[in-house]
Amino acid sequence: MSAPDRWVRFETAGEGPRYGFVSGESIVPIAGDLFGEWRRAGEPLPLAGARLLAPVIPPTFYACGINYEGHWRTAAEEFGLDLQRTWPRSPEIGYRAQSAIVGPGDAIVLPSDVPPNVQVEGELAVVIGKRAKHVSAAEASEYIFGYTICNDVSARGWQFQDRTFWRAKNSDTFKPLGPWIQRGVDLASLVTRVSVNGEVRETFRTANMIHSIADYIAAMTRYITLVPGDVIIMGTDGHCPQIQAGDTVSIEIEGIGALTNPVIRSDAP
Amino acid sequence: MSAPDRWVRFETAGEGPRYGFVSGESIVPIAGDLFGEWRRAGEPLPLAGARLLAPVIPPTFYACGINYEGHWRTAAEEFGLDLQRTWPRSPEIGYRAQSAIVGPGDAIVLPSDVPPNVQVEGELAVVIGKRAKHVSAAEASEYIFGYTICNDVSARGWQFQDRTFWRAKNSDTFKPLGPWIQRGVDLASLVTRVSVNGEVRETFRTANMIHSIADYIAAMTRYITLVPGDVIIMGTDGHCPQIQAGDTVSIEIEGIGALTNPVIRSDAP
Repeated sequence: MSAPDRWVRFETAGEGPRYGFVSGESIVPIAGDLFGEWRRAGEPLPLAGARLLAPVIPPTFYACGINYEGHWRTAAEEFGLDLQRTWPRSPEIGYRAQSAIVGPGDAIVLPSDVPPNVQVEGELAVVIGKRAKHVSAAEASEYIFGYTICNDVSARGWQFQDRTFWRAKNSDTFKPLGPWIQRGVDLASLVTRVSVNGEVRETFRTANMIHSIADYIAAMTRYITLVPGDVIIMGTDGHCPQIQAGDTVSIEIEGIGALTNPVIRSDAP
Repeated sequence: MSAPDRWVRFETAGEGPRYGFVSGESIVPIAGDLFGEWRRAGEPLPLAGARLLAPVIPPTFYACGINYEGHWRTAAEEFGLDLQRTWPRSPEIGYRAQSAIVGPGDAIVLPSDVPPNVQVEGELAVVIGKRAKHVSAAEASEYIFGYTICNDVSARGWQFQDRTFWRAKNSDTFKPLGPWIQRGVDLASLVTRVSVNGEVRETFRTANMIHSIADYIAAMTRYITLVPGDVIIMGTDGHCPQIQAGDTVSIEIEGIGALTNPVIRSDAP
């Protein structure tokens, strides 16, 4: 058997989260370390109807911020930002919070007092497979295990009003991740599509980044050790569609899959 | 036996990290969940000479930023910041990176190209013990498992030059944490002392915060679910001593302990 290309984290009644790989219409459960030694463990189960979870909870959750020219321009115009100051001169990494992660199909829950302009950012998520320090851009791809999709949900009112991104980008459920980790992806050919209620609202070439994944990994690992399971979300392009309770938002990246989440409003005061 | 007050995470030759509690001059190893069900497991070993690790790797690592009036004033003056804009009007939380955490005694490794002004920030670290959402300030203490100490090492050159705190505060080894988790602490009586090479350089009342721990937990859990093991570092007061390779820095909080780390320079280019 060749190495599996599609890895899921999933849950069945009465058992905690497990990993498995997709084979045809089935999930083949594994035991051991997804990033190291593993073996088949247990009977295959149908992929359809399985409860998929965020495919990884990263030890550290990295985010590129503005990393596409189209988003840089539209964000600056929409929010009245200074174009020069907003331009990402170099691949400086930011962070997101593990506490905000949910899986495919999970609800994005809008806090009752969130300002009206909540937007979705469809982003490629890189999953690191090997410990990496002082890695060159030329070697960077060897340290990537695979790719998944992140919706970097952003409450713009809070984003520009608060000192940090705590509730703007890291409120509970604001970081859907999934649906799985895909290996063997041809980055150059990827296209990202962001849809709300089935209507495509933004389409962009996924690889059209200001700073490439390899450049980010090289810059980051000069100072930071990446470890297996770390996730880097690569930014979004163009205009970010607004969402509200009742919507369903889907981010599809051809060759990876689609991350789909309903939007509801919290009933907590 | 009454509930243990001092918890360590430690490592012995040939075994991975384990938890234990301190009893007299010994560590009593446990199996199970520090924050839930646990039992004694194995023979006690001497505390002296044990290799202590960072006492917890938080699922999410929270940081208050400026949270003492003295540090607000000195930082604004030293770095030419606007006093009004820097004042933390409300308890908005920030983040630090798990990747930067090291334990007591581990070296703080200065990257070869770090700008000269690297400073230490001595901070109380709150360790969460129970899942917390929509918790009031009055109830907040019930969700705290105990306290440890963090050195929020900060490369000021990068802090004010970069768009994020990635290498300024999150370079590898820049977040020493430890030496243990202390329970049964009287917060009101705590005093923090920051020493470099044995000389006390800053002393402050630990509880003299702008926004209290309870206020932070109440504000955070309006939007964010805290889980057992999460860490919140509470900020520092006064002036932050500068460090360089060859120094040894120690942060002592009376009633908790002392977190001591040598400073070296990376030999990587």
